[in-house]
Amino acid sequence: METVERAGAARFAPIDPAGLGSQLHCFIRELYPICRSITGEGLRKTLRRIGARIPLAVTEVPTGTPVFDWTVPREWNIRDAYIKDSAGKTLVDFRCSNLHVVNYSVPVRERMPLAALKQHLFTLPDHPHWTPYLTSYYNDTWGFCLAHERLLEMKDAEYEVVIDSSLEDGALSYGECFLPGERSDEVLISAHTCHPSLCNDNLSGIAVAVFLAALLRGASLRYSYRFLFAPGTIGTITWLALHESRVSDIKGGFVLTCVGDRSPCTYKKSRLGNAEIDRAFEQVLRHAGLPYRIQEFSPSGFDERQFCSPGFDLPVGCFMRAGSGYAENHTSADDLDLVSPSALAESLLRCWTVIDLLENNRTYIGRVQKCEPQLSKRGLYRTLGGRAPTGEEENAMRWVLNFSDGENSLLDIAERSGISFEILRSAAEALLRSELLRAT
Amino acid sequence: METVERAGAARFAPIDPAGLGSQLHCFIRELYPICRSITGEGLRKTLRRIGARIPLAVTEVPTGTPVFDWTVPREWNIRDAYIKDSAGKTLVDFRCSNLHVVNYSVPVRERMPLAALKQHLFTLPDHPHWTPYLTSYYNDTWGFCLAHERLLEMKDAEYEVVIDSSLEDGALSYGECFLPGERSDEVLISAHTCHPSLCNDNLSGIAVAVFLAALLRGASLRYSYRFLFAPGTIGTITWLALHESRVSDIKGGFVLTCVGDRSPCTYKKSRLGNAEIDRAFEQVLRHAGLPYRIQEFSPSGFDERQFCSPGFDLPVGCFMRAGSGYAENHTSADDLDLVSPSALAESLLRCWTVIDLLENNRTYIGRVQKCEPQLSKRGLYRTLGGRAPTGEEENAMRWVLNFSDGENSLLDIAERSGISFEILRSAAEALLRSELLRAT
Amino acid sequence: METVERAGAARFAPIDPAGLGSQLHCFIRELYPICRSITGEGLRKTLRRIGARIPLAVTEVPTGTPVFDWTVPREWNIRDAYIKDSAGKTLVDFRCSNLHVVNYSVPVRERMPLAALKQHLFTLPDHPHWTPYLTSYYNDTWGFCLAHERLLEMKDAEYEVVIDSSLEDGALSYGECFLPGERSDEVLISAHTCHPSLCNDNLSGIAVAVFLAALLRGASLRYSYRFLFAPGTIGTITWLALHESRVSDIKGGFVLTCVGDRSPCTYKKSRLGNAEIDRAFEQVLRHAGLPYRIQEFSPSGFDERQFCSPGFDLPVGCFMRAGSGYAENHTSADDLDLVSPSALAESLLRCWTVIDLLENNRTYIGRVQKCEPQLSKRGLYRTLGGRAPTGEEENAMRWVLNFSDGENSLLDIAERSGISFEILRSAAEALLRSELLRAT
Repeated sequence: METVERAGAARFAPIDPAGLGSQLHCFIRELYPICRSITGEGLRKTLRRIGARIPLAVTEVPTGTPVFDWTVPREWNIRDAYIKDSAGKTLVDFRCSNLHVVNYSVPVRERMPLAALKQHLFTLPDHPHWTPYLTSYYNDTWGFCLAHERLLEMKDAEYEVVIDSSLEDGALSYGECFLPGERSDEVLISAHTCHPSLCNDNLSGIAVAVFLAALLRGASLRYSYRFLFAPGTIGTITWLALHESRVSDIKGGFVLTCVGDRSPCTYKKSRLGNAEIDRAFEQVLRHAGLPYRIQEFSPSGFDERQFCSPGFDLPVGCFMRAGSGYAENHTSADDLDLVSPSALAESLLRCWTVIDLLENNRTYIGRVQKCEPQLSKRGLYRTLGGRAPTGEEENAMRWVLNFSDGENSLLDIAERSGISFEILRSAAEALLRSELLRAT
Repeated sequence: METVERAGAARFAPIDPAGLGSQLHCFIRELYPICRSITGEGLRKTLRRIGARIPLAVTEVPTGTPVFDWTVPREWNIRDAYIKDSAGKTLVDFRCSNLHVVNYSVPVRERMPLAALKQHLFTLPDHPHWTPYLTSYYNDTWGFCLAHERLLEMKDAEYEVVIDSSLEDGALSYGECFLPGERSDEVLISAHTCHPSLCNDNLSGIAVAVFLAALLRGASLRYSYRFLFAPGTIGTITWLALHESRVSDIKGGFVLTCVGDRSPCTYKKSRLGNAEIDRAFEQVLRHAGLPYRIQEFSPSGFDERQFCSPGFDLPVGCFMRAGSGYAENHTSADDLDLVSPSALAESLLRCWTVIDLLENNRTYIGRVQKCEPQLSKRGLYRTLGGRAPTGEEENAMRWVLNFSDGENSLLDIAERSGISFEILRSAAEALLRSELLRAT
Repeated sequence: METVERAGAARFAPIDPAGLGSQLHCFIRELYPICRSITGEGLRKTLRRIGARIPLAVTEVPTGTPVFDWTVPREWNIRDAYIKDSAGKTLVDFRCSNLHVVNYSVPVRERMPLAALKQHLFTLPDHPHWTPYLTSYYNDTWGFCLAHERLLEMKDAEYEVVIDSSLEDGALSYGECFLPGERSDEVLISAHTCHPSLCNDNLSGIAVAVFLAALLRGASLRYSYRFLFAPGTIGTITWLALHESRVSDIKGGFVLTCVGDRSPCTYKKSRLGNAEIDRAFEQVLRHAGLPYRIQEFSPSGFDERQFCSPGFDLPVGCFMRAGSGYAENHTSADDLDLVSPSALAESLLRCWTVIDLLENNRTYIGRVQKCEPQLSKRGLYRTLGGRAPTGEEENAMRWVLNFSDGENSLLDIAERSGISFEILRSAAEALLRSELLRAT
């Protein structure tokens, strides 16, 4: 079983991925039934469940607030929705799945023939068992989503159509969990909270973020950490608008989304492309011993679109697995079976290791710059020279000593040497104990 | 059928490659019989035929004019040349092919035995049916070129040898077609005009240049365009010597040569290697959907050798197909069959698309730099969000918006995104109409 | 047979690798029996043998001299050592091989049972016929190395153990051969001299260095050359400590080690990675027509560890064949059969060609910068133009002319063109004779 063992500073306790996987999945099951949107009671309820596990400050931003090019929209709430046939039989029922209603549908209460109703019915003919997930946030309309096979069964008759929703002035809600560290420099971890009953996108991201925050909460931290739980796009835009003057504190960060499926871990770089966070994820994934992917930045995707807009250009990437490219994305098939406890745990472990790297990525200066220091007189050299094999740690010490000229961080040395950050950090700690290094 | 459709500014009309291919070939047939050289009446006649199609200013530079390390040579003209056997039968006849005489041969009128004559006979033993093309511009000598199989038939007898040529003070001629645009910055397109009856090298380059000029003539242009029709090497050197103070206007350009054969399109970069013209050709060829080659600069080749000499180092590349590496090059087999109407049309189309790119390669600034602008309220977003597919144009708009920070041209964005320049330009035009972009 | 033919300046005579190979091997045989260490009489004797072939200044640095983080150790000498069984039969005998004693063993004269003795016996179970080579320079202990099959024959009895060695105040010895050139800039060539009877590591490096020095001795040189024969690590550290103020003269250099085995030539780059010496070796190996390897710098290896420590960061690489990775390294199997005369000669030839490159790597300026100069009027152009083939030398001349703008050395042009340095240098010499180039 893979664990994070902390040599050296050992600020963090080791974590047990196996136990965490089932806890993560359990939290996803808890949040799954709630009908979330970019505003409304479902979103608030979700934030309350998060707040039960980690300290969370919730902000309510009133409808009509201008946020850059956007405006906070009216608040949407829904109580019920259904389509009944003339015999009163319910064919499509919001109570069975909140995906059945186009998110942000205006209220409707009508009787209409199938031909007229069909303008408002959406299916996936290529996946006849699945219900699609659709939204209409900024276009007043209404609709139902259903399995294509259900649509085929609907006869040319009259139907009763009800959406008991409301669109009224209210607020957009988001939550923040801030964990202060020694420095005011922040690491930002963001997960969108607007999707209704969809597990991978993005209950998986919410769950991993919550557990990361819980794990970090008790630790002594170098950086401050901010976990943001906001609706996608408009929520993140709202947060950025309200925190515009403080984003310069963000030293690095990542969006967490779709981290529960069984595809390889994938990191999409920030627009900057070579930020420390980008290099940290690449380093951690390279040495994790499993397949992984690194993607260049592109302006489609998730909330990194906002963090990496040219006026901010923050060092914020996106950590995911399949990304949005999996067939089940934005359908009812993105369900509890799609997300795996072991994938969730692996995703958490990678993030944890990245944070560990950021916390420990120092730049040292060797006290002996001219020629090598004598390792043997400090007990850092094997007993006999010659044929006796050089240990991995002695090799790592030589890399740290040679490149600790004040210009190279441990991550720089890891990249140049091919040796893992973890081994180099152990070597650096041994050298610090022998006073062969000092911090810059 | 592939055409250039102009969305947006639509300054240029679409062109029909099929029709143009046969017109290009027809013009090559018209020029084919003329005996050109680096000076003389054949060169002047060729410039008159070009001048019948596009406005052409012809310059005559007198023999003896110093041009950098060179001197404009005496003018060469030829009326007739032949070898007859003792029975009066003509064995080699200039009137059948002007390739039979070594270009710039001094006059001769002698009788001589085969052994002496052979010092002046040149053949290609490996291609016994072909006549080679040879020159002796700066070395007073004379010679005949013929098929090797003809040489083998010549008996050891006495022959009458006549070259009725003259080498006298005169002038070197070149022609320029200048099309003024909004800006004095020039795009230079050059085709060497010194080769006699050789089709691919370089009647193909002349024809494509003439047609490009004709197509551009009526357009409203951002850049000015200069088409240069000069003899290779000495003509281009002469032109550069006479325009030395004005070459700083040359913002980009290319030599057009050997563009009628059936090999893939090939672009050889300028010495600078990353000039806009280099990147424009690479972009256009990459998205043309056909095999192509990009070559690094080398100081052998065509007149790019002069434009890219270190004292000029102009952003001038070379567009060709096989280049000079095809077996028939500089032989009688470089004839009307070697050049194909469809290859000529394709070459023209690529140049046209490159010019279109240069004309439209702007750098914009998005009016919303912080977070994305709201596309939906401007009708630029699909009706429903969620599972509804993102269109290619919406994706292109996101690229243009994110990277229009004043630092990136559309070509920069095309290179980074992998999206074709054409699609990005359409997206930029939609964004301009919505006032989401402004020009720098 | 491959030879170095010197066109142009011809300062160096051609060398005959075949003859040199056997001379190199002969010199290795001469040095093989001597018991070397990082100090002592064996080291002094080796330096005397070197001094018999090339002028050598020997320096003795007293025990206790501080050298950066180290101290010059006591001098070690050994007269005899053996293990005898109770019957007086000698089982392990220093006189048979000096590898049998752990280098720097303290004196011992004891009788002890096998169990106790075994703590001091070292073997290679995976190579039961070989004796390992071990050292204990900075840890007062003693030991014997022997073949594993011999150890298995030793019975559980009492043994007489004698090491007649001494560790006393004395000196560390190193030798320098300095060959002055026109410039005070130095090329440093270093070979460690501390290993006892091991042929590839490093009698091969010593031999090649001595022969290089002998070959260069009579030549007229641009650079000065310093050949350093010093014990590994402590010797080089000592030399650097004593020459600290003068290392800025070192313009390039390389460590010579393990150059007699049959693996491909390998060059390990300096820490700088793109120094002229790094590029020169890569250029020479690329054009040698045989397999080769280029390695990035790493801080394990040989004395490049000291030259490339961050406080010096000198342009010093390491030339070797298998490097230290061969199975026989630091064992009795690194013997006279492991080193091949032809490999030694090839190694010498590569170094010689690298030095030739350094001596001749000039940056020129073409006297004609605008357009090409007219080669034909200087007799540098083939007789006829057109179909007549362009020679390799004409092509090389065009490269030299185009890129001799004062910014590019011949090595820069070689790298860009892919043409070998040797051909470009010939072309440059032809152009110099025609006064088309001048030196910067």
